[in-house]
Amino acid sequence: MALIVMKFGGTSVGSTERIRHVATLVQREVARGNRVIVNVSAMSGVTDSLITLVREVATPETPDAFADMDFVVATGEQVTAGLLALRLQELGQPARAFAGWQIPVLTTDAFTKARVEQIDTRNINAVLDKGHVAVVAGFQGITEDQRITTLGRGGSDTSAVALAAAFEADRCDIYTDVDGVYTADPRIVRTAKKLDRVSYEEMLELASQGSKVLQTRSVELAMNYNVKLQVLSTFEDKPGTLLVREEEIVEKHRVTGIAYSRDDARITITEVEDRPGVAAAIFGPLAESNINVDMIVQNVTPDGKATDMTFTVSKGDLPHAVKVLKENLKDVRYGGLHTDENVAKVSVVGVGMRSHAGVAQEMFSTLAGKGINLIVISTSEIKISVLIEESYLELALRALHTTYGLDAVVERG
Amino acid sequence: MALIVMKFGGTSVGSTERIRHVATLVQREVARGNRVIVNVSAMSGVTDSLITLVREVATPETPDAFADMDFVVATGEQVTAGLLALRLQELGQPARAFAGWQIPVLTTDAFTKARVEQIDTRNINAVLDKGHVAVVAGFQGITEDQRITTLGRGGSDTSAVALAAAFEADRCDIYTDVDGVYTADPRIVRTAKKLDRVSYEEMLELASQGSKVLQTRSVELAMNYNVKLQVLSTFEDKPGTLLVREEEIVEKHRVTGIAYSRDDARITITEVEDRPGVAAAIFGPLAESNINVDMIVQNVTPDGKATDMTFTVSKGDLPHAVKVLKENLKDVRYGGLHTDENVAKVSVVGVGMRSHAGVAQEMFSTLAGKGINLIVISTSEIKISVLIEESYLELALRALHTTYGLDAVVERG
Repeated sequence: MALIVMKFGGTSVGSTERIRHVATLVQREVARGNRVIVNVSAMSGVTDSLITLVREVATPETPDAFADMDFVVATGEQVTAGLLALRLQELGQPARAFAGWQIPVLTTDAFTKARVEQIDTRNINAVLDKGHVAVVAGFQGITEDQRITTLGRGGSDTSAVALAAAFEADRCDIYTDVDGVYTADPRIVRTAKKLDRVSYEEMLELASQGSKVLQTRSVELAMNYNVKLQVLSTFEDKPGTLLVREEEIVEKHRVTGIAYSRDDARITITEVEDRPGVAAAIFGPLAESNINVDMIVQNVTPDGKATDMTFTVSKGDLPHAVKVLKENLKDVRYGGLHTDENVAKVSVVGVGMRSHAGVAQEMFSTLAGKGINLIVISTSEIKISVLIEESYLELALRALHTTYGLDAVVERG
Repeated sequence: MALIVMKFGGTSVGSTERIRHVATLVQREVARGNRVIVNVSAMSGVTDSLITLVREVATPETPDAFADMDFVVATGEQVTAGLLALRLQELGQPARAFAGWQIPVLTTDAFTKARVEQIDTRNINAVLDKGHVAVVAGFQGITEDQRITTLGRGGSDTSAVALAAAFEADRCDIYTDVDGVYTADPRIVRTAKKLDRVSYEEMLELASQGSKVLQTRSVELAMNYNVKLQVLSTFEDKPGTLLVREEEIVEKHRVTGIAYSRDDARITITEVEDRPGVAAAIFGPLAESNINVDMIVQNVTPDGKATDMTFTVSKGDLPHAVKVLKENLKDVRYGGLHTDENVAKVSVVGVGMRSHAGVAQEMFSTLAGKGINLIVISTSEIKISVLIEESYLELALRALHTTYGLDAVVERG
């Protein structure tokens, strides 16, 4: 008898009609002879509405205020969990809803972005032992002193994986509005194929490079605890994509998938004096201001006395980053500070890169062949990312998809 | 340093703008040097919306289903409590929101209509000791095995009084959209006066006879635990009505107030055979069907062999009551079963009746003077109720108000 954790996101439970549909999927899993824990998000839009209410009365800044904000926001998942448990009972399937504190899911006290520390399995196991379904409000837990926490937005994937790890589930199925992980975004690359399997490491790179299918943290957690994770569609009855260890992937392609992000902005500081400590003077203050710097490239000028420094931050952080830099570069000689938001990042990802040479060269020549200029390049063991002008994004994605032999033989839809 | 419990109903916290206003009332109470526990309802409309969601997925009938329904519905008060605590903090007043389980408020396991059994004062006292305000989600508690319960609709008055009793509060202020208890409904009787004081016993009679200002159960609880209860307006800055023991009312009027209800329906069964056990045959099945019977009158017919039986049930129960009666009167000889929904009940209430004779006679002669027929009469120590034709209701209320000398000297508004 297998134990399955099923996770349904906001769109999957976006209305009572959809909750009724989800109940049938849960019933089907039970009918297969499995023990089932369901983890649900708030109905789509509900979390945003709750945050809007909070903003209308306060601008939370202290830990106490963040705690009361979590107290408000955690109700969204509680409502969905109760409704799904009610629906299952209506269909004759005994079920019980659990808030995070009733399990309990113990977390850190970093309100609004807490991390799961420990999950007690006893209360839920008592329910499963009776043949009932446990429906868990995702995204939430409690601190040691009994205050409600949330895991931060998107944390419900993470809480589903944490549940699967704690209960040593045989599989964790993440139901969503896409039917799996694709070689590229099928809205842009019509020939993109669904992947049957992808390794945790590849999924991590794809997720951090802009693929929205799974949260990075949930993939990390699945990898660390060896949770067999499946991404599949709530709305179509077909297999999804299974996340597995690298060694379980037999046929290793050079490139497994291509991700992109429009979320980056470029900052270039020209003719910075080239002396020790300058990089620290630039990136130290940004780090202190919690601004994440992604790609960095530094070119020495022909005379060797100065350097051009280019790097990317998220578009949302750009104004803050510029302010911080201007304040902190008073003692540093430099030419100018230029920014550009019309950029996009394209990343090719694949564990096959470890054993196949020339993947980067193929990428650069493909893009050069289309007249696309590379602004910044950064690489890891299984990923190559380039920053390009945003208007070339679709062209670049389609060209690379073809270069690496990812196009589906039969054209989709 | 006094401890005050402040309770705000759904209308008082019906929008974030109103929650901001409520926060200023709480601040004012703190500024007077008081320790403050605030008890809040769901924002108006929220509980109904949650119940609608429940009804869209299920028709709860089992205790487990009622438990999950409570799990859903209790979130309404949680949101308000969190928002008010956030607003107070925004104004610089430290505060913390509590769900029922965090206090905890221990209740029976009668889901959807639980009763408070015990309130632990330690967690809230720890917060009050720091000079913080405790904001409590009303209307809810937990069972011994940690499941969320609700006290049933209108239960938030009761949970506020229960809090005041458990904490031995110096006063429990029920903020509402009216500014106190009146001698009669001021929408009908323009000369109605606000009462500065009313005894628990009178308020109980007024509440059970249709005055919507306070729930009957909350008044009973306040009386039993000697909680000084004040009803006052959220929207106008003036004193309300204080509920006190009878001996604290110095000037005892014959009649303190006049209540009414349009919620009753009359049932008359004519020419019922007059033999032992007939009344039980009529009222037993109604009681078993959870139909509450209010006023009862029985007249023997002139020949003494049969009787006419008249009684009232709530309008909502009427169709069910008729069905039950017809099924159960098969073995009883009777003439006919007649119903009338065009009736209203008028009650005069006052502790002064205990010492003043003739109050009933004054009532009957006043109504007779206006040509109003009395269908049923029922009395208690401090109350006389009559059932009349509904179209005479306003006339009856105004006439009685004048008869008992309740008219305000200065005409209002």
